[in-house]
Amino acid sequence: MSTSAQIGVTGLAVMGRNLARNFARNGYTVAVHNRTATRTRELVAEFGHEGDFVAAETAKEFVAALERPRRLVIMVKAGDPTDAVIQEFAPLLEPGDMIIDGGNAHFADTRRRERELREQGIHFVGTGISGGEEGALHGPSIMPGGSKESYEPLGPMLEKISAKAQDGAPCVTHVGPDGAGHFVKMVHNGIEYADMQLIGEAYQLLRDVAGYSPARIADIFRTWNTGRLDSYLIEITAEVLSHVDAATGKPFVDVVVDQAEQKGTGRWTVQIALDLGVPVSGIAEAVFARSLSGHAALREASRGLAGPKPAALDEAEAAVFADRVEQALYASKIVSYTQGFHEIAAGSAEYGWDIDLGAVSAIWRGGCIIRAAFLDRIRAAYDARPDLPSLLSDETFAREIAAAQDDWREVLVAATRQGVAAPGFAAALAYYDALRAERLPAALTQGQRDFFGAHTYRRVDRDGSFHTLWGGDRSEASA
Amino acid sequence: MSTSAQIGVTGLAVMGRNLARNFARNGYTVAVHNRTATRTRELVAEFGHEGDFVAAETAKEFVAALERPRRLVIMVKAGDPTDAVIQEFAPLLEPGDMIIDGGNAHFADTRRRERELREQGIHFVGTGISGGEEGALHGPSIMPGGSKESYEPLGPMLEKISAKAQDGAPCVTHVGPDGAGHFVKMVHNGIEYADMQLIGEAYQLLRDVAGYSPARIADIFRTWNTGRLDSYLIEITAEVLSHVDAATGKPFVDVVVDQAEQKGTGRWTVQIALDLGVPVSGIAEAVFARSLSGHAALREASRGLAGPKPAALDEAEAAVFADRVEQALYASKIVSYTQGFHEIAAGSAEYGWDIDLGAVSAIWRGGCIIRAAFLDRIRAAYDARPDLPSLLSDETFAREIAAAQDDWREVLVAATRQGVAAPGFAAALAYYDALRAERLPAALTQGQRDFFGAHTYRRVDRDGSFHTLWGGDRSEASA
Repeated sequence: MSTSAQIGVTGLAVMGRNLARNFARNGYTVAVHNRTATRTRELVAEFGHEGDFVAAETAKEFVAALERPRRLVIMVKAGDPTDAVIQEFAPLLEPGDMIIDGGNAHFADTRRRERELREQGIHFVGTGISGGEEGALHGPSIMPGGSKESYEPLGPMLEKISAKAQDGAPCVTHVGPDGAGHFVKMVHNGIEYADMQLIGEAYQLLRDVAGYSPARIADIFRTWNTGRLDSYLIEITAEVLSHVDAATGKPFVDVVVDQAEQKGTGRWTVQIALDLGVPVSGIAEAVFARSLSGHAALREASRGLAGPKPAALDEAEAAVFADRVEQALYASKIVSYTQGFHEIAAGSAEYGWDIDLGAVSAIWRGGCIIRAAFLDRIRAAYDARPDLPSLLSDETFAREIAAAQDDWREVLVAATRQGVAAPGFAAALAYYDALRAERLPAALTQGQRDFFGAHTYRRVDRDGSFHTLWGGDRSEASA
Repeated sequence: MSTSAQIGVTGLAVMGRNLARNFARNGYTVAVHNRTATRTRELVAEFGHEGDFVAAETAKEFVAALERPRRLVIMVKAGDPTDAVIQEFAPLLEPGDMIIDGGNAHFADTRRRERELREQGIHFVGTGISGGEEGALHGPSIMPGGSKESYEPLGPMLEKISAKAQDGAPCVTHVGPDGAGHFVKMVHNGIEYADMQLIGEAYQLLRDVAGYSPARIADIFRTWNTGRLDSYLIEITAEVLSHVDAATGKPFVDVVVDQAEQKGTGRWTVQIALDLGVPVSGIAEAVFARSLSGHAALREASRGLAGPKPAALDEAEAAVFADRVEQALYASKIVSYTQGFHEIAAGSAEYGWDIDLGAVSAIWRGGCIIRAAFLDRIRAAYDARPDLPSLLSDETFAREIAAAQDDWREVLVAATRQGVAAPGFAAALAYYDALRAERLPAALTQGQRDFFGAHTYRRVDRDGSFHTLWGGDRSEASA
């Protein structure tokens, strides 16, 4: 047994296996370990030629195989399994060693684990990894949290195996202390939900209002993919929409059950945003749209409800409409990212993470599901002004949304009149209009709250809290 | 010291004090206790003439003053203070006694407390109480959870002090086991948020699009209050809008800072709905609207963003528009309640509470903030068909929404084109249109998920899970 492995991976399901292979392919000696040793043996048998693996059968062997400081990556299920593995390995480690959790942990768990292991002198690096199986193998976007110290011996290795942006920059950065990495990964996933929902709405509008076939819509997405919407999700949307089901000869999208599933990080993004007081309505609508789609009985019972039938547009009108949908999709996307980055900024402030928002957008440019040309521009916006109050305050985005807004509104008018649900587009526009409003009905809300609950209100013309004696002579008292 | 008190209240801040007075005014002997005894003495000094109070200085005296089975109401802050009070009193109680928590506890805490106290033979009754200070004194809507057994000696007393609906029925029912009462109170508050947001949007549209003054809008709300929108919140909206600020002579609503505050139950309603997989988009938009309004710096930075200026309508157009807003408000309200009752049904199924939805709507008819004529009709819908898949499946509501939908859509068209944020109206309509849709873009979402993550999909034409080999020859495999 050598002690020469620079890194170890335990948990060799597909993500762990591919990550281990990625390290090996990049020239690192990788210790590999799995609860059931068969998997370890299979990995070495099948992929041993790709690089240097050290197969470890036991936890002790695994730890012994690692050079110091030990870098131990755990790739197991989030939740209790992660705690179990930590409890198994932590006693075998020494101060200065590190455990890297590459699973989709909740950032609050990561904060707890980091705190507990820090007491033993062990670095805990909660790390978001995006890009799925393929990303893990060929280069993911990596979002490590944890101490600055831990990044020094780990960062260069992650940079080597990570995706590279088009300018060659590795898609990895030290996001911030303790839970920062998993938090940012969570919001990444929330934004991914929103992106997918907006694409879905664009598709449905092109289908129902413009009357286009999936194949034709695929072509439109292909065209969009050459412009400012250039992104992995737009690209694969075209692939999915142009795919024809071999068994029936129908468009693939028409033979798939229209009930979307979800795994939980989108839901977390909204729940945490609520705790932080950050409006993420676009992401919330995306999560709700998935759950709504899955309520089959409810939908069945609602099919007869009254509504307009979409009117078919003629060819010229349809073409104009399709261009408008591109504007609506782009404008709504700007809002989604505005909300997501607001959440990251709020989390960073709440937990003292000091996250560099420009760096976050930069590492999402490659490897991950939401990779897009667009992220280069977000990075530019934050690089130009790190204290940007919101993405909408960036001049370029504000100008683009100004140019898009008439079309954005008309797409929503069509959706509204023709009865096609566009909750993501609608939530994004309402957010935009609310933010720029001179006055909001929140003043009335405060008046109501003071009326029924004596919750008090503030005045626009002087400091302090006030209460009106609603049940009495309606005079005002300082509260 | 007598041992004749039929009920005891500890925690004599305004809610506890008023609840104690309510019991006393209804002929019960009430033991009263507070951590600082001054408050107890003040209560008896000031309100002793209203009925029979037994002032207890210590926890022991308090418990000794209660006849058996002891009924001990705690009215303290939710969270740790509630646990502290339970820990103080539980050791002094005997099997068969009960602790009634009338605070705004999270239902998960109530479930835990009920379980822990049950082991000691003590009944724990987590109870929602709505109606604010005035309700506590004159008759609130009461939502007790806990064991059926505990309701027998407690229910009649609650029925006596509760609000009465117009038909004379007391606004209290045994909601269900353990956390059911607090859960239902939580959703009540979420619906209250949605109601207030929808009213706020109606107001803003009448102000900006119809060009009406607050006083004129107050008159419109007064008129609405004589129709199907008849409710406490519509009534007090008219009061708030017609109020003129004495200091400035301006409409009161214009001198109030337009930043709405919140206490947390609205947020919980959305967070729990996300866990249960229930789309509550209207409630979520209401919560987000409050948090958005509070981001003063963000709003300030966004004031310059491009948007249309609302065009002034002429007198006749404005009147037509106002009628349409009533339709939009009513239709959106139906959707809010549909979502809220869906959440209660889902919670009931998840936790085995067997909640009677008709009974819940019945006890909200009086005393609480959302009391409304409308709730009588919801009760009728559930009484007619307890297994109603959703409120939208009720024939009457479906017919009303069918009649309202053209106007509802046109109000949203006006909001969209004129740049007035109406997130609640928009979310409600999108939910309606999504539910009734023949096909949703969720099929595309599933295709994308299968493409980038091999998450598989189901087919409309045969059972099983499938995966397309997107990176290969695009053949389909059973998964």
